[in-house]
Amino acid sequence: MASPVESRRPQLRKDPVTNRWVIFSPARAKRPSDFKSKSPAPSSSDSPQTCPFCIGQEHHCAPEIFRFPPQNSDWKVRIIQNLYPALSRDKDLDSSTSPSSVYLLWGCLLDGYGFHDVIIESPVHSVHLSDLTPEDVAQVLLAYKKRILQHAGDDSIKYVQVFKNHGASAGASMTHSHSQMVGLPVIPPSVSTRLDSMKQYFNQTGKCSICHVPTKDLLVDESVHFISVVPYAASFPFELWIVPRHHVPHFHELDQEKAVDLGGLLKVTLVKMSLQLNKPPFNFMIHTSPLQASDSDLAYSHWFFQIVPQLSGVGGFELGTGCYINPVFPEDAAKVMREVNIS
Amino acid sequence: MASPVESRRPQLRKDPVTNRWVIFSPARAKRPSDFKSKSPAPSSSDSPQTCPFCIGQEHHCAPEIFRFPPQNSDWKVRIIQNLYPALSRDKDLDSSTSPSSVYLLWGCLLDGYGFHDVIIESPVHSVHLSDLTPEDVAQVLLAYKKRILQHAGDDSIKYVQVFKNHGASAGASMTHSHSQMVGLPVIPPSVSTRLDSMKQYFNQTGKCSICHVPTKDLLVDESVHFISVVPYAASFPFELWIVPRHHVPHFHELDQEKAVDLGGLLKVTLVKMSLQLNKPPFNFMIHTSPLQASDSDLAYSHWFFQIVPQLSGVGGFELGTGCYINPVFPEDAAKVMREVNIS
Ligand SMILES: Nc1ncnc2c1ncn2[C@@H]1O[C@H](COP(=O)(O)OP(=O)(O)O[C@H]2O[C@H](CO)[C@@H](O)[C@H](O)[C@H]2O)[C@@H](O)[C@H]1O
Ligand SMILES: Nc1ncnc2c1ncn2[C@@H]1O[C@H](COP(=O)(O)OP(=O)(O)O[C@H]2O[C@H](CO)[C@@H](O)[C@H](O)[C@H]2O)[C@@H](O)[C@H]1O
Repeated sequence: MASPVESRRPQLRKDPVTNRWVIFSPARAKRPSDFKSKSPAPSSSDSPQTCPFCIGQEHHCAPEIFRFPPQNSDWKVRIIQNLYPALSRDKDLDSSTSPSSVYLLWGCLLDGYGFHDVIIESPVHSVHLSDLTPEDVAQVLLAYKKRILQHAGDDSIKYVQVFKNHGASAGASMTHSHSQMVGLPVIPPSVSTRLDSMKQYFNQTGKCSICHVPTKDLLVDESVHFISVVPYAASFPFELWIVPRHHVPHFHELDQEKAVDLGGLLKVTLVKMSLQLNKPPFNFMIHTSPLQASDSDLAYSHWFFQIVPQLSGVGGFELGTGCYINPVFPEDAAKVMREVNIS
Repeated sequence: MASPVESRRPQLRKDPVTNRWVIFSPARAKRPSDFKSKSPAPSSSDSPQTCPFCIGQEHHCAPEIFRFPPQNSDWKVRIIQNLYPALSRDKDLDSSTSPSSVYLLWGCLLDGYGFHDVIIESPVHSVHLSDLTPEDVAQVLLAYKKRILQHAGDDSIKYVQVFKNHGASAGASMTHSHSQMVGLPVIPPSVSTRLDSMKQYFNQTGKCSICHVPTKDLLVDESVHFISVVPYAASFPFELWIVPRHHVPHFHELDQEKAVDLGGLLKVTLVKMSLQLNKPPFNFMIHTSPLQASDSDLAYSHWFFQIVPQLSGVGGFELGTGCYINPVFPEDAAKVMREVNIS
């Protein structure tokens, strides 16, 4: 059994996936703060009449890419262009069609080609992802997949980041339940770091680091095809990963049956977080493999879901070092999350 | 001249210091937000009677390390232990005295030895760092230096991170003007990345990347020994660096004269930010070299100050990719900052 928090020394841990040191500091938990969210994400704070993501308000949105069910005014999920996209979906006609970076005397420069979409997860303003049935969550996941596959043939898109912001302090500017996808012309820095680190683990052990993610004291829930765990070196209190049991490099290999199974586990996880942590703002991110990953890369690269409740925010220490301070030991967070009663 | 923001395409830039891609996205600036801080940092929101950092309240603080002037009840700066330290200043008697990490089957584990101090920058609750004279700011900087030097002989401390949180959305839990220092038993991830990248630049060009930091269109202010610039691939809108003109690897080489000069430029920079950006919450970080850096490392490693106003917050995209979206081109931010009238 874990000793009481009070008597424990701080620890630094690093895992072979993120390759970052995290400081586990029981003393920090005693700062005046109770680790319940102080700014629960609103249920429906902006008025549905003014929300462009609501059913009936489609004309206030940037163009639609597709909806489910198709051609149905009674849609359940829509993928639309982001009205304020970070990247431009038009290729720059001044430069060559395939983006390539210019190495300047000092830095590098690359044209901002890519895509940036919004996934509207429900037609109804007050319905959150965790309110949906596993089948309806699966539709959202399968919409991500379908959109990723539309870009799989575009050599200029190297990586697709799927993410969700829920609640203002998790960065959300819209309250209607939605997530986003950005297709990038480069492999972003955290993805390169992750892949390098997973490759190193594979070369040393002959194993995929995610296939062997530790579950002792860290397992939270299980479904047929997935498990949820608190990662050994969680950067944030109550951070959770949902991991496919079997080795799968790309998220977009998800099929209908696994999507429903994952939808159920994601729902359970979000409901537990909401109950235990007082409806915290949260982010989730899908960590997958680059679109053009080679066969040898696919041996060590295994996709997973990262879910992070935003309970504390960061400061100059984290900005400066890239090292997080987590006051909650992963074993303790996993125990708490295992025991949340959602029935 | 830069073209108007509206007609510009998004760009990705990477610099040889942070080695991270940043997306410059003019379209993002049009999102409903005016890039003035909506939550200005409070001047003195908690009552001075209850603030342990105020003069006369020293008995409510964790033990003092030193003060300036020494042995004077009328102090100007105090360095104290953090009451809720992230790391333990006592060596773990169960393990060897020098911390070494244990490589487990999956991750790494290291005892949490280190130090975590608070620097109280003024005896008076309502006085901010930017209200001090350049000479008084210099005392704060020289207090950091003195404290770093106290650890220079401890082989177990690999890196010292100095940082400041100002305002709640920059992470501050205390409003009385203060900064913090953490002495770490490892070189943290962002520091390793920075050093590797600066080394690569040095090997390719024979030059230190910071000695050659671009100033064309990016310079903001100058003093005798320092310049302030918006970095070429700034991660955040209105991020600023203060860079020593001449090659100096360690912050703690700062002498009295340079400290006053830097104090003046830091003050000007903070006053400009406060005026232009509506008293934003901000962080600053001192990026220096590891304590035990070798002579060959010192050739490419050059310390600098990074100042980041917190105007927007981050979301799942940044958490997932490590890539930031900055809606303000550095050239535009530099022009605005150059023209702020502080007289
Ligand atoms: N009518 C309309 N049609 C189509 N799209 C519309 C629209 N009205 C608004 N949008 C888009 O909808 C998106 C809603 O996204 P979120 O609420 O998750 O956060 P946002 O992207 O604003 O920023 C957060 O996430 C990003 C990425 O992590 C961070 O950079 C940022 O700091 C953080 O606040 C916005 O990107 C917006 O551009
Ligand atoms: N009486 C007393 N004597 C001595 N020390 C006292 C004290 N009362 C309080 N303290 C300490 O004073 C410090 C004040 O620091 P800040 O306000 O800059 O932010 P804090 O460290 O709380 O967290 C922010 O910064 C850290 C590091 O970046 C992030 O991990 C975190 O999320 C963010 O909120 C705290 O660390 C606290 O422990």
